[in-house]
Amino acid sequence: MPYYALTPTTLRDWLKTQENMTQLLGPTSEDWHIQEVSDGNLNLVFIVSGPSGSLCCKQSLPHVRVAPDWPMPLERALFESRYMQHTASAVSPYAPQLYTYDPEMYLLVMEALIPHQVLRTALINDSVSTGFSASIGEYIARATHASSWLTQPFETGAHLLEAFSGNTSLTRITVDLILTDPFHPCPRNPPAEPALEPTIQALQQDTALHQAISTLQMRFLTERQALLHGDLHTGSIMLHGNDIRVIDGEFALMGPIGFDCGLYIGNLILHACAAPHKIDILISEIETFWRSFCQELTLLFQQRKGDAASLLSDNAAQSLLHETLISILRDTCGFCGLELIRRTIGFAQVADYNICATPEIRSAARLKALHTGRTLIMKHRDINSLDDALSLIRS
Amino acid sequence: MPYYALTPTTLRDWLKTQENMTQLLGPTSEDWHIQEVSDGNLNLVFIVSGPSGSLCCKQSLPHVRVAPDWPMPLERALFESRYMQHTASAVSPYAPQLYTYDPEMYLLVMEALIPHQVLRTALINDSVSTGFSASIGEYIARATHASSWLTQPFETGAHLLEAFSGNTSLTRITVDLILTDPFHPCPRNPPAEPALEPTIQALQQDTALHQAISTLQMRFLTERQALLHGDLHTGSIMLHGNDIRVIDGEFALMGPIGFDCGLYIGNLILHACAAPHKIDILISEIETFWRSFCQELTLLFQQRKGDAASLLSDNAAQSLLHETLISILRDTCGFCGLELIRRTIGFAQVADYNICATPEIRSAARLKALHTGRTLIMKHRDINSLDDALSLIRS
Repeated sequence: MPYYALTPTTLRDWLKTQENMTQLLGPTSEDWHIQEVSDGNLNLVFIVSGPSGSLCCKQSLPHVRVAPDWPMPLERALFESRYMQHTASAVSPYAPQLYTYDPEMYLLVMEALIPHQVLRTALINDSVSTGFSASIGEYIARATHASSWLTQPFETGAHLLEAFSGNTSLTRITVDLILTDPFHPCPRNPPAEPALEPTIQALQQDTALHQAISTLQMRFLTERQALLHGDLHTGSIMLHGNDIRVIDGEFALMGPIGFDCGLYIGNLILHACAAPHKIDILISEIETFWRSFCQELTLLFQQRKGDAASLLSDNAAQSLLHETLISILRDTCGFCGLELIRRTIGFAQVADYNICATPEIRSAARLKALHTGRTLIMKHRDINSLDDALSLIRS
Repeated sequence: MPYYALTPTTLRDWLKTQENMTQLLGPTSEDWHIQEVSDGNLNLVFIVSGPSGSLCCKQSLPHVRVAPDWPMPLERALFESRYMQHTASAVSPYAPQLYTYDPEMYLLVMEALIPHQVLRTALINDSVSTGFSASIGEYIARATHASSWLTQPFETGAHLLEAFSGNTSLTRITVDLILTDPFHPCPRNPPAEPALEPTIQALQQDTALHQAISTLQMRFLTERQALLHGDLHTGSIMLHGNDIRVIDGEFALMGPIGFDCGLYIGNLILHACAAPHKIDILISEIETFWRSFCQELTLLFQQRKGDAASLLSDNAAQSLLHETLISILRDTCGFCGLELIRRTIGFAQVADYNICATPEIRSAARLKALHTGRTLIMKHRDINSLDDALSLIRS
């Protein structure tokens, strides 16, 4: 079947041809309620509810959804389906179940997350209980364990490199929007608000900063440590009570583990910049996240089968793991700094800043994010502990 | 056509079906002289000479040629053909021309190198003029430039990762034979000669050494800097006068550039261990190699189009390149150390030791290689210049 962009009507027709989906929703297609809920920048998303169950359909468009003149290959849905398949058993229960993938329609059909809300929205609405970051630490540790040279025979990672390195159209977005555009004048950057102009100009002329960023660019592209989600911000996480799920793995690639960690804590810090009265709670979430990540990876490392540690005794392997965790923490802080800046002045900004009561408060929040971002990028290579990192974040 | 292992007779029949090859050799197949010249560990190789021209045919066997009970997937010929295709324009004139690749026969047909000899043999026979290493430095620099994140848009390297990461059966050989086996008791290691036994036991119980090796194992698997030849020893180089060619790219993968450099200089040092009166000449070759590599990469870097240096001025980019070259030198020394040890006590040893006049002299040569190898592995992370490295090699 050739590709066409779905509407609620054509999606109903497509679903009627899928026996498994019909069983899941209920036999009478007229009883199904189909709603388009597209919210992210890129894709069409529908929620389908029937008398027996519900599901979520996500389809690639041949362009960026919010910028129709920006073409975007359809294949991103293929990479998201591969990511879900490759990580499913490792990260369960922290991801929705993939029911089916249609390679011609570039369509994923998966578990609908109802009544979950997006973590970013829950933070903005103050409707989330603390401690949620423990699950994200576990999630990254489990995905890392399942895919890294440190813990698995090298063939595992080699086949993941083969399967995900072709995801170049979305990796191009990361390279441009996160690692490059905010640091030079670029038509994709939105117009600067006047209070930020001098700071943006300074960031774009800061040669020492650009050298530090080059190191992070090199690490992002060269250091293929494990399978990453690739876009793990608070908008890619849904939760309802203690049920926490990571979605939207279409940016998946093999890369430095600290990239996923850095995007996650970066978005907590962005929220703290917009809501400074919550700084202690959010610092505590970062501590919870990092402790949970380290604990889970250390635990899983006991079952290591990696070629890279095969000569080592258990003690020596623990020492290698400790060194690796510090190196991941440094990357985390560097990529976190990049995320703080790009989400504040780049193409894809965050809704957290809408909390701010006045434009002046919002500008101050943004300046704080830019300052913290620059500090983390400049100093990430000197960090030796989470306390070092937290001091920089609070400074 | 289904696969079958060729003989001179069946190769003649196969060639008769190839119009281009018939044109190249001459029209009458009875006039072709076909000789099997298999010499490496893995494959069948034939030289075919006709009245009009000659060619070389290389075919995968479903097992290691010298160990028929060691199965080996045929696909290695596919990866060698990809390596030749991807590097051809960059490394010309330092590689033979690929005429055709038959994917069902796992057969490469390429330029025959006549009257070239293998560099290792030329070194052993003292029939090579000094300065040959300049070409190898240029070769690695050009292959690096064509494939690295530093100099090319990231999509170039991403597609190479996609094309070469599946070469797991040969990468498994590297991981086992170079990075692991010599450092623990392993049935693939040949019996130790008595004079070496205490040193081998010490290497296999040396926990500090094993930690340093783990770092190199991690770098080999994680650090995907550029497209490597993957087996660049003096047996993979053929020369005749100033005409120098690199062959046998079947181990190709994306990896740390210092791996290719380290294997190359490691094999020069192995020769110096076996022929200590030539140490100054071989040290001079290492200097020539490294200077040529750095000069050529620096020159090519002026045409950089890499995402990783896109924010940098020319001066800042040169500084990034300088840092990168030191990091490559450290890797070079570490992988060189591994090569010295594995070629001395591992599965695939080198013929250079046959120069030694007596078993005692040979044992002393091997002990010297083991000592230098261990030193380089232990100290590679502290090296800041080629002089640092040469001091360790001479020590």
